[in-house]
Amino acid sequence: MEPSKGWDLPGRILMGPGPSNVSPRVLRAMSMPLVGHLDPSFIQLMEEVKDLLRYVFRTRNEVTIPVSGTGSAGMETCLVNLVEPGDPVLVCVNGLFGQRMCDIVTRVGGELGRLDAEWGSIVDPAQVRKALDRGKVKVVAIVHAETSTGVLQPLEEIGKTVREHGQLLIVDAVTSLGGHPVETDGWRIDACYSGTQKCLSCPPGLSPVTFSDRAMETVRNRRSPVQSWYLDMGLLFKYWGEERAYHHTAPISANYALREALRLIREEGLEARYARHELNQTALVAGLEAMGLELLVAEGYRLWSLTTVKIPEQVSDAAVRGRLLTEYGIEIGGGLGPLKGRVWRIGLMGESSTRNNVMLLLLALDEILRQQGMNVEPGAGTRAAGDVYARHGARDSAA
Amino acid sequence: MEPSKGWDLPGRILMGPGPSNVSPRVLRAMSMPLVGHLDPSFIQLMEEVKDLLRYVFRTRNEVTIPVSGTGSAGMETCLVNLVEPGDPVLVCVNGLFGQRMCDIVTRVGGELGRLDAEWGSIVDPAQVRKALDRGKVKVVAIVHAETSTGVLQPLEEIGKTVREHGQLLIVDAVTSLGGHPVETDGWRIDACYSGTQKCLSCPPGLSPVTFSDRAMETVRNRRSPVQSWYLDMGLLFKYWGEERAYHHTAPISANYALREALRLIREEGLEARYARHELNQTALVAGLEAMGLELLVAEGYRLWSLTTVKIPEQVSDAAVRGRLLTEYGIEIGGGLGPLKGRVWRIGLMGESSTRNNVMLLLLALDEILRQQGMNVEPGAGTRAAGDVYARHGARDSAA
Repeated sequence: MEPSKGWDLPGRILMGPGPSNVSPRVLRAMSMPLVGHLDPSFIQLMEEVKDLLRYVFRTRNEVTIPVSGTGSAGMETCLVNLVEPGDPVLVCVNGLFGQRMCDIVTRVGGELGRLDAEWGSIVDPAQVRKALDRGKVKVVAIVHAETSTGVLQPLEEIGKTVREHGQLLIVDAVTSLGGHPVETDGWRIDACYSGTQKCLSCPPGLSPVTFSDRAMETVRNRRSPVQSWYLDMGLLFKYWGEERAYHHTAPISANYALREALRLIREEGLEARYARHELNQTALVAGLEAMGLELLVAEGYRLWSLTTVKIPEQVSDAAVRGRLLTEYGIEIGGGLGPLKGRVWRIGLMGESSTRNNVMLLLLALDEILRQQGMNVEPGAGTRAAGDVYARHGARDSAA
Repeated sequence: MEPSKGWDLPGRILMGPGPSNVSPRVLRAMSMPLVGHLDPSFIQLMEEVKDLLRYVFRTRNEVTIPVSGTGSAGMETCLVNLVEPGDPVLVCVNGLFGQRMCDIVTRVGGELGRLDAEWGSIVDPAQVRKALDRGKVKVVAIVHAETSTGVLQPLEEIGKTVREHGQLLIVDAVTSLGGHPVETDGWRIDACYSGTQKCLSCPPGLSPVTFSDRAMETVRNRRSPVQSWYLDMGLLFKYWGEERAYHHTAPISANYALREALRLIREEGLEARYARHELNQTALVAGLEAMGLELLVAEGYRLWSLTTVKIPEQVSDAAVRGRLLTEYGIEIGGGLGPLKGRVWRIGLMGESSTRNNVMLLLLALDEILRQQGMNVEPGAGTRAAGDVYARHGARDSAA
């Protein structure tokens, strides 16, 4: 018999593009013994999860469920249900996840139109309007929070434009849901998907998805069956809805975890949670800039949950990330695609968005970057971040 | 702030068609804090999981990974990767899961041929040969352990026939892997999938899948892209293989759990585990028959992991299952499709396959069935089962 090595996992401060750190309450919930997926207690749990997801998505959509796969499965769910072969689709692309949507639209047999913007910039709402005025489109797909670049995409105006044109709007909120306002109903989003392992601070494995009544009507009126059986929203909602018709076996433990993570969000309150994400990112940015680092994204369009920092020329990407991981136990992310080797991606998502994490990372970077030969004033980063927290504290106690 | 109700889940003895009970070691492993999915420690864990899965699948296939979805996602993975639009496919159907394969083949655009057998019977290998002699087929798909009927399908001869005809064989081993011998290489299976929540005794959420070199060659030589991006085996293996190319974020905690569950299997040993499943099912069957209950499946073709019992006419399906759940905390399954209301499905999978569970269930059924007016000799079931264990003990000590 081999010795069990179940506890050989290192402790990590997760400040990359996800997963984020998970609350002990969520880990404990996930480790509860299982019940069956048709057990009355699990059916009640499913109802709670749907309600709590509606709260986080800020929607009244009846069809609001966790798909039994990761965020990418959520992306595929939205696209395969709403796009049929030959349907014209406009995908806005300013990063890797917009590209991925194009890939899926092509596999579905949709007629792909692309609206490209530079990686690190937003997609201009005026350009979206222009593109829609030019030609007939059935579905518009866009990323709210581009995990590859750290860009926050304004959606309110685009939502209005798409609705005026009578089209459907699909939104990727993988890196924003639970950290940034996502106004599913307010912005007239027809299908929105996310992942559990970002600002919801739950282990990866489920993808919360919400479909508007218009979206579900489109699913019901399809000319052809959804190409994926596993992700067929009609079948999925028969299982998650009142019929309880067996489809697949829902991941029991992952749903325990999700319920607990969503309860934590409800207890904190969305507004307070957004404010926490904003404050910690403001402090991080002040610290990074005080150290002489530059950000990829212009002010006003930066995600609170993910900050992209340009890697200084004299500095080794691999060495810095390697030392952060092995010496400090801190994970940050590297760049993807054209940004590979050019940026770091620093996540402050959910449980990972704390003052301690911001300060620790700045402290570690201060030491490592100076050893890499960068001209950093000792302590400048943590001082600048500390000032942000102090100003915030003063404002709070004045209020 | 709402009170946390994270521990409001009832204790259950899971003797339905899955999930099965999960070892505390697996639950603890799953509740460990997370690392990133590109963390060196997670990459090592991925290698361990692949090795352990090869052990359980009895294969040398390099491409042996857990797909990030439930067993049905594994089914879809095999079919969407190996079937292209217009490809002729023969699906053997003797239960719900064979039907589901037909549904997916149709959605893929494959040219579906069905070989039907009665629900509760096996598919005759001679009929498979006849069907293959009649017409050209690219892929043959068959269920090893039909979870809807409790039938164990002999595969060795069919594997030989399919290979002789130069075709690919896809096998559903959702309810057999880890409880019954599954000889992936020995039976010449080209693609095999399973679920974690049956005889592997792990929470649902992952689907172990193995592809032979022939299967991967077929994937590489496709004329068209795989219709699912999420389940594209080429992309999945770039992530799980040496390239480590980012595809999706693997469910970290679920993979912790799977590693620990597979280690438990390795510690027990496959042969011992099969023998345990066989013994407990033999005792259960002896007990059920001594109580005057009839089984759906003929001797010789019964699963050790799942026993289908005909519901006696005078007895209420819902009342019996309801009382088992609420009074004894025991879950058993009802029938599906044409067997709805006609059979119970009693699972003895993985951790749930114990002498105590067999005896408890027989004791509970004895009481409930007599109260429902069935003429059962008090104690007949547990005595007959006890005799099986006693004979086994005597044989063991004589050996």
